[in-house]
Amino acid sequence: MMLRQLVDAETSTYTYLIADLDAGVAALIDPVREQLERDLQLVLELGLTLSHVLETHVHADHVTAASALRERTGATTCASAAGAPCVDVHLRHGDVVRVGAIAITALATPGHTDDSLSYLVPGAVFTGDSLLIRGCGRADFQNGNPGELHDSITQVLFALPDDTAVYPGHDYRGRLASSIGEERRWNPRLAGKSRAEFIALMDQLDLPPPKQLATAVPANRACGATATP
Amino acid sequence: MMLRQLVDAETSTYTYLIADLDAGVAALIDPVREQLERDLQLVLELGLTLSHVLETHVHADHVTAASALRERTGATTCASAAGAPCVDVHLRHGDVVRVGAIAITALATPGHTDDSLSYLVPGAVFTGDSLLIRGCGRADFQNGNPGELHDSITQVLFALPDDTAVYPGHDYRGRLASSIGEERRWNPRLAGKSRAEFIALMDQLDLPPPKQLATAVPANRACGATATP
Repeated sequence: MMLRQLVDAETSTYTYLIADLDAGVAALIDPVREQLERDLQLVLELGLTLSHVLETHVHADHVTAASALRERTGATTCASAAGAPCVDVHLRHGDVVRVGAIAITALATPGHTDDSLSYLVPGAVFTGDSLLIRGCGRADFQNGNPGELHDSITQVLFALPDDTAVYPGHDYRGRLASSIGEERRWNPRLAGKSRAEFIALMDQLDLPPPKQLATAVPANRACGATATP
Repeated sequence: MMLRQLVDAETSTYTYLIADLDAGVAALIDPVREQLERDLQLVLELGLTLSHVLETHVHADHVTAASALRERTGATTCASAAGAPCVDVHLRHGDVVRVGAIAITALATPGHTDDSLSYLVPGAVFTGDSLLIRGCGRADFQNGNPGELHDSITQVLFALPDDTAVYPGHDYRGRLASSIGEERRWNPRLAGKSRAEFIALMDQLDLPPPKQLATAVPANRACGATATP
């Protein structure tokens, strides 16, 4: 498996290209509309066919390139059954997407939003906004629920081996990856805290709404197939 | 070998943590002064001792954390013999720095600056500003020389196996890594161009000076040991 991480600097969003070079096929996780040409160029230059676009959830902070990628490449778009209605395939916990010889397993990790999925490949997990590096996504909109988020992180993600690499949807301090072991030990929202303490902490965050909430959520429910703002 | 790439978003600078987890030791390549606490916290949380700080060159676009890291951790600072006079060890082409069981080989790759080094580990090369993703560093200050840069890239770096991962000092489009094979094939400054064409292209760039040139170069020649601006 080849992995390339890509950054949208404007929104600190991470996109992941996962490829089976032997089979010549690739998937993109959480592509950003403004980075469409960059990401397509990389796929082309690597000699790959884009078979899948995978969304971790309906994003509130950027607009997906899923629809445009589907139009340009014929890729199959995938998201949670609780998420964007526009996608080709609705995934449930345990469903497997095959990209060449790579098996990508969807893990339901709701709490940041009710449709949040993580994607597991051998040795690594793409956690979207459920588990961030030394943090986690907020849980106060899009049917977010701090109790569910706690359970998703502690019972689903922290059940993975400690040396599993963690690739999040964002980081705002320039960190790109972590591991399950590090987050179990060092994540300040979870380490040494009870479920009730986590919920209380999340309830006290009192964050302003994401800047793009009102436009990004409907745009992403349409896979980004809206007029460019 | 464990590798973590880190981003300074302000200057799009990439810092690399290379660690031998069994031996509990690590090196940082091109640490940025403003990210000192982030990087030290990561070293601490991974249970590592910082044994070395490696500079690819005297930077003109950011100030190094080398001096502060040496003070805080006792790490040995290393750079080219043609570079910052402040470092503990001056490296020449072929010199090897050992970080636990990891052998890091210095490769002289002058041209962006006269002191530019790349650092080779098994399977990957850290190219500083000599070779960038689909680009290369400018060659019009700090004794830069486009002919030398061409020779460094084509004769030293492109002599490495195609599947060698390329980790550059910067990227301004959110790309984090490449490979020697990709750059040989797709780097628009080099692919299909003669040495003379490369030199002509570099001479025509006509770029403004880096914003921090006047302050960063003297600060970096002192390993960053100047008053914080």
